[in-house]
Amino acid sequence: MTLQENYKRYEDWKFRSSAYEMALSIINIDKLTVAPPAGAAYRDERAAYLAGELFAIQTDPTILPILAELKTDADPVIRREAELYEREILKIHVIPKEEYVAFEEAMSASYNAWLEAKKNADYAVFEPHLKGMIEWKKKLYGWRNSSLPLYDQMLDDFEPGTTTAFYDRFFSRVKERLVPLIHRVVNAEPAEEAFLYQYCPASLQKQWTTDVLLPLLGFDPSWGYQNETEHPFTSWTCENDCRTTTKYLEHNVTSSIFSTIHEVGHAWYEHNIDPRYDGTILSFGVSSGMHESQSRFCENYLGRSRAFWEAAYPSLRKQFPDQFGSVSLDAFVRAVNASKPSLIRTEADELTYPLHILIRYEIEKGLFSGSIDPADLESVWNEKYREYLGVTPSNAAEGILQDVHWADGSFGYFPTYALGSAFAAQFFRKMNEEMDVDEALRSGNYTSCIAWLKDRVQTYGAFLSADEIMQKATGSPFDPDCYLDYLEEKYSALYHL
Amino acid sequence: MTLQENYKRYEDWKFRSSAYEMALSIINIDKLTVAPPAGAAYRDERAAYLAGELFAIQTDPTILPILAELKTDADPVIRREAELYEREILKIHVIPKEEYVAFEEAMSASYNAWLEAKKNADYAVFEPHLKGMIEWKKKLYGWRNSSLPLYDQMLDDFEPGTTTAFYDRFFSRVKERLVPLIHRVVNAEPAEEAFLYQYCPASLQKQWTTDVLLPLLGFDPSWGYQNETEHPFTSWTCENDCRTTTKYLEHNVTSSIFSTIHEVGHAWYEHNIDPRYDGTILSFGVSSGMHESQSRFCENYLGRSRAFWEAAYPSLRKQFPDQFGSVSLDAFVRAVNASKPSLIRTEADELTYPLHILIRYEIEKGLFSGSIDPADLESVWNEKYREYLGVTPSNAAEGILQDVHWADGSFGYFPTYALGSAFAAQFFRKMNEEMDVDEALRSGNYTSCIAWLKDRVQTYGAFLSADEIMQKATGSPFDPDCYLDYLEEKYSALYHL
Repeated sequence: MTLQENYKRYEDWKFRSSAYEMALSIINIDKLTVAPPAGAAYRDERAAYLAGELFAIQTDPTILPILAELKTDADPVIRREAELYEREILKIHVIPKEEYVAFEEAMSASYNAWLEAKKNADYAVFEPHLKGMIEWKKKLYGWRNSSLPLYDQMLDDFEPGTTTAFYDRFFSRVKERLVPLIHRVVNAEPAEEAFLYQYCPASLQKQWTTDVLLPLLGFDPSWGYQNETEHPFTSWTCENDCRTTTKYLEHNVTSSIFSTIHEVGHAWYEHNIDPRYDGTILSFGVSSGMHESQSRFCENYLGRSRAFWEAAYPSLRKQFPDQFGSVSLDAFVRAVNASKPSLIRTEADELTYPLHILIRYEIEKGLFSGSIDPADLESVWNEKYREYLGVTPSNAAEGILQDVHWADGSFGYFPTYALGSAFAAQFFRKMNEEMDVDEALRSGNYTSCIAWLKDRVQTYGAFLSADEIMQKATGSPFDPDCYLDYLEEKYSALYHL
Repeated sequence: MTLQENYKRYEDWKFRSSAYEMALSIINIDKLTVAPPAGAAYRDERAAYLAGELFAIQTDPTILPILAELKTDADPVIRREAELYEREILKIHVIPKEEYVAFEEAMSASYNAWLEAKKNADYAVFEPHLKGMIEWKKKLYGWRNSSLPLYDQMLDDFEPGTTTAFYDRFFSRVKERLVPLIHRVVNAEPAEEAFLYQYCPASLQKQWTTDVLLPLLGFDPSWGYQNETEHPFTSWTCENDCRTTTKYLEHNVTSSIFSTIHEVGHAWYEHNIDPRYDGTILSFGVSSGMHESQSRFCENYLGRSRAFWEAAYPSLRKQFPDQFGSVSLDAFVRAVNASKPSLIRTEADELTYPLHILIRYEIEKGLFSGSIDPADLESVWNEKYREYLGVTPSNAAEGILQDVHWADGSFGYFPTYALGSAFAAQFFRKMNEEMDVDEALRSGNYTSCIAWLKDRVQTYGAFLSADEIMQKATGSPFDPDCYLDYLEEKYSALYHL
């Protein structure tokens, strides 16, 4: 084939893939937001067929030699695309289709068992499925014939370039500095926060979010739309179609506020990726950690700051005068940053959150090295919570069974959550050197912070690696101490340590 | 190929078609309800590709011989499916793809010209495109090589089995009986209706619709979902996924109420089709007229009745005490049935509506027989409105340019609107013979009327023809006098004629 024909086939292949990806993305968000539930079986069966069509396009064997050629193309964008496509295809290409289908079935059964187990707080129901998922992962990764340890391969899938050695260094530093800090916070005067849990009608929360919060965040209806779901998430099809969801809790008004800021942070990342990359593999955030860094940057570094609430609190107070009329700005900011060791990861505060992740990382590593037996997992879990956070689950539902990730075989994903927060700290330090972040937030100019993120991080999509982005944006390689310094400084001030 | 292989290929072909149809349906309703507008170009381009894939499946030449065989299958369901699929495929199969693409482009240009023309109330802008659409239709239908007159073929596409001769008889009877009746109503004491146009906040309308109206109509969230759009419509993917949209007008509270009852009527039809037909051509209403008969049955025959409002009015009054506190039930019912010749079809009342359609029918017939020149259309239109309804448009936007149908080449569709109302009257007469409709409505048992429609009409989907359904449901062939009797009786009583 001529070079010209190769380009044409490549463009066509990307376009066809992106059409199916778009359809599946819309079918999925439709399902999770508005689609009548009784139609699920009909829709799911057809969506699965279309996913199969996408799989067939993506693993079309004639595309691999084209990608191999394009990896040496003159255009660096094409080189990077080809490299990433090849990496993703080779991961799935090696797995026989019937194996993959059998794994999907096992995963589905595992998910259902987890639901059941969690409902009854009975780890024994889930344990054989967890074992099964681990065996499946060994089998599926086995087809790749890599010389790397299995857990390293899984880590690399979520966060390219990371290894067990990398995370060991990261988490040992986290443990070293945060465990004592948390102990000091625990012994300090606790922050008053009961007023956050007063009744606030969902309709009034939604009104404030729509009329005040989303405009303040710059979430423009021309390219963004927010709906409601049980579990908030972000989904997108292109630069100009980025959707978020949230959930209103009537006895926890800040829950949807911070979930909105978080998800809109993900949406901003996707919206700000260079639109030239739309419809290609470069139009996605470069890694899980980098995506999470942008959402946590928005949620914690901007959204929980005093300066942000200087702009936002007056209108929230006006919306809920009975609830917040007598709560000062300082008391409110202190409350939304209150730290207290707790059992549930998704409800953990900014300071204790990384220890929840550390626990999961140590367990995943142990499960795949064989040093932890799934049969002992509940007690291992509880022991680690006692050791690092000083709390003990009263049952498996608020312990080992709380997260869905292992039920669907996502091992190696958790660590990116902590990494994202740490990336964000380093961006935050740099941003503060280059602009007056507090002044921007105080004056309601939130989007000038987003503009900085766009320019330094988001515009690249997956064109640059996470390492390259960090180096370019901050002038230094990743340094976890930025994160730990930030937490120490913030919580020392908040708790007068 | 063996019979077994044929069945298998046929089932597979239907399934694949239905998967793409489902995806396109969801992408479309997503676009019209929630999708961020700036993403339209990206999405439309990919949806067009998927539509092309569907087209390729549907016109796969290897399916025609299989359908030919299945038309003599032992199973009457398969015979009917094969017959209908063949009919639809042959319509598009004969058209060369590049011709079809060129037509789609012309249609898109025509639609844009119509928008522009309507905005400026300038028919001259649209006229060349209308001529173009007529020429395109002649060309496209030419490929079918049918010996039938062109307009008859178009009528048959929307309402299988109908012809110009059929509609001539129907509309001459409509004209003969309704024109004098309308004159009598015009000269009677007009109904008071100003109170319908008082300000009612959209949020309170929506609340009433959600909390009272939709439950009363039996529109169950497990299989139905209502959203908002500029132009209300109904869309579905299967028995258990039927969606409607509405639009709230703050100075016309009954607008969304009757549009909701109307669209939920369409949704009930699709929901009630035998679920064995899901994913096949039998899972659609059998014709445009039959579909419209079910929605108009709900909107007018049930929804505008005194008995319906005996159940619904107390809560509406409670929702809007300032607006309706002093309006009696009788005054309200009289107002929502008020008749007055007007210019805009979509806002016309039940009595004058068929004359709007008659006018469009006469014009379509003239355009295709050549007896009406598109150049004269504005004056022909205005003359007919003067003659039949006694009103004259002050400009083309409220006259000849008001409807989108001709802009996108849908000639032969309008007549089915009037036919639907007439079908409904005949069902209504029979239903009243067999059950106490008023008692059911009065006691809030709206769904027992739907159960009758399901049993007699809806369950068949497209398995029976419209003629067969009418005969089976009512024991008689279609008789337009049922409709005209109903209107005469209803309006004589309302206006004390």
